[in-house]
Amino acid sequence: MKQIALYGKGGIGKSTTAANLSAALAGEGLDILQIGCDPKHDSTRMLMHGTWIPTVLDLIRERGDEKITVDDVVYRGFRGVRCVEAGGPEPGIGCAGRGIIATFQLLERLNALKGDVIVYDVLGDVVCGGFAMPMREGYAQEIYLVTSGELMSIYAANNIAKAIARLSRRVRSRCTLGGVICNAKNIEGERELVDEFARRIGSRLIAYIPRSRIVQVAELQKQTVVEYAPESDQAAVYQELARTVYGNETTSIPTPLEMDELESFALEFVQV
Amino acid sequence: MKQIALYGKGGIGKSTTAANLSAALAGEGLDILQIGCDPKHDSTRMLMHGTWIPTVLDLIRERGDEKITVDDVVYRGFRGVRCVEAGGPEPGIGCAGRGIIATFQLLERLNALKGDVIVYDVLGDVVCGGFAMPMREGYAQEIYLVTSGELMSIYAANNIAKAIARLSRRVRSRCTLGGVICNAKNIEGERELVDEFARRIGSRLIAYIPRSRIVQVAELQKQTVVEYAPESDQAAVYQELARTVYGNETTSIPTPLEMDELESFALEFVQV
Repeated sequence: MKQIALYGKGGIGKSTTAANLSAALAGEGLDILQIGCDPKHDSTRMLMHGTWIPTVLDLIRERGDEKITVDDVVYRGFRGVRCVEAGGPEPGIGCAGRGIIATFQLLERLNALKGDVIVYDVLGDVVCGGFAMPMREGYAQEIYLVTSGELMSIYAANNIAKAIARLSRRVRSRCTLGGVICNAKNIEGERELVDEFARRIGSRLIAYIPRSRIVQVAELQKQTVVEYAPESDQAAVYQELARTVYGNETTSIPTPLEMDELESFALEFVQV
Repeated sequence: MKQIALYGKGGIGKSTTAANLSAALAGEGLDILQIGCDPKHDSTRMLMHGTWIPTVLDLIRERGDEKITVDDVVYRGFRGVRCVEAGGPEPGIGCAGRGIIATFQLLERLNALKGDVIVYDVLGDVVCGGFAMPMREGYAQEIYLVTSGELMSIYAANNIAKAIARLSRRVRSRCTLGGVICNAKNIEGERELVDEFARRIGSRLIAYIPRSRIVQVAELQKQTVVEYAPESDQAAVYQELARTVYGNETTSIPTPLEMDELESFALEFVQV
């Protein structure tokens, strides 16, 4: 079983990438579990054709975790991908990370943490102990950074690389960096910039996903691109990503940049 | 002294709005302190002409908080706006909220939490206890929700409204909702949608900020719009926002929507 996590800044298209990756992996005949670890709980929505599935944390709050069954929290979406949403803390109270770990523990108890690939989709804006939980506790072993060429998106990716580097020194953590995925915003020189960023942190660009209108069109139809337009170029990009990720045996402990390096690096590529 | 907080989803233009609001408030002759409470610590950067000021949390980690002076953490930017960045936890470890509260406590000890208006700029994606800290502990008293017409942005705003409603029942919290600010993405019917959202949660739209290319142009010059193009229509919008916020005496305890209400409401406005 391969356990991977996609981390990225909010708004960068991380959930879109995760859902299409899961759909494409399932297209290879693999048994996939996708776990949304963003309090906005919209990670699996396109796999579920627009349905907001109940979140594990809401269910735990409503009835206590002892009365929850697999069918309450695991939903089958497109191509049989099993979908789970961790959910978030009660607004204004509690820790998002504790919620994520409670979700994993429940899934373990229910024997639901299984399949050929588990895809964790995690918010990367706040790299606190909470959102690092999937990599801290030995769940996610291969981390993929999803970023565009925008400075703050690369900043977030670099921060996650810092967390991986730090956690790799711990006994319990087994996480490494699988690679960088460029989800393009169509900025000039974007591919080269993200490619160079990946190289500098001791990793590599494993996929370049061009910006395409078909992503929005598919989402209006509440579907992944892989489902809505399986013959499209965009679907082929996700299918290729799926093969790359599934076959990836080259991971690394990243060497993150310092803030000033990061900015001077970005300036080399962007005309001010 | 008025203490306000801007909350919104990452990527929504919350920091741009906060920095321009502070610049405009300072233009009214007021003494302003802006405190960035986003681990990405880019809240005050345009006020500081592109400089990344040291974060309070980095300084505390480096030398312990007893050796820190006001000059180490408070920097004067455009029009004398005093700028502070709380910073974030060490990647992968610790709690972002504890960092925010440590920052406030340090500023209190240094007698730096003062002025005519304090503007807190807070990440709104994760409404855990940590990011609710500014409103939980009685610092921010008037909350402004910054949102576009996009569903997930309104979702985040609604979540913050939930936190305000919940916290308003606590003794120590004095926070109320000051209003909703629409930072437009130029979606059709966006103004009407956000206006109606504000009404339904028992609040009101206090400003509509049109999308304008001049915002990006100013940021490339590392300035707020208020500084870069003081005679522009966009600067006038921020100036009007500043007057509205400073003179605002109508606040409310919001009545947030449930998830299904929120979605069916959004569907009324968006053609699928």
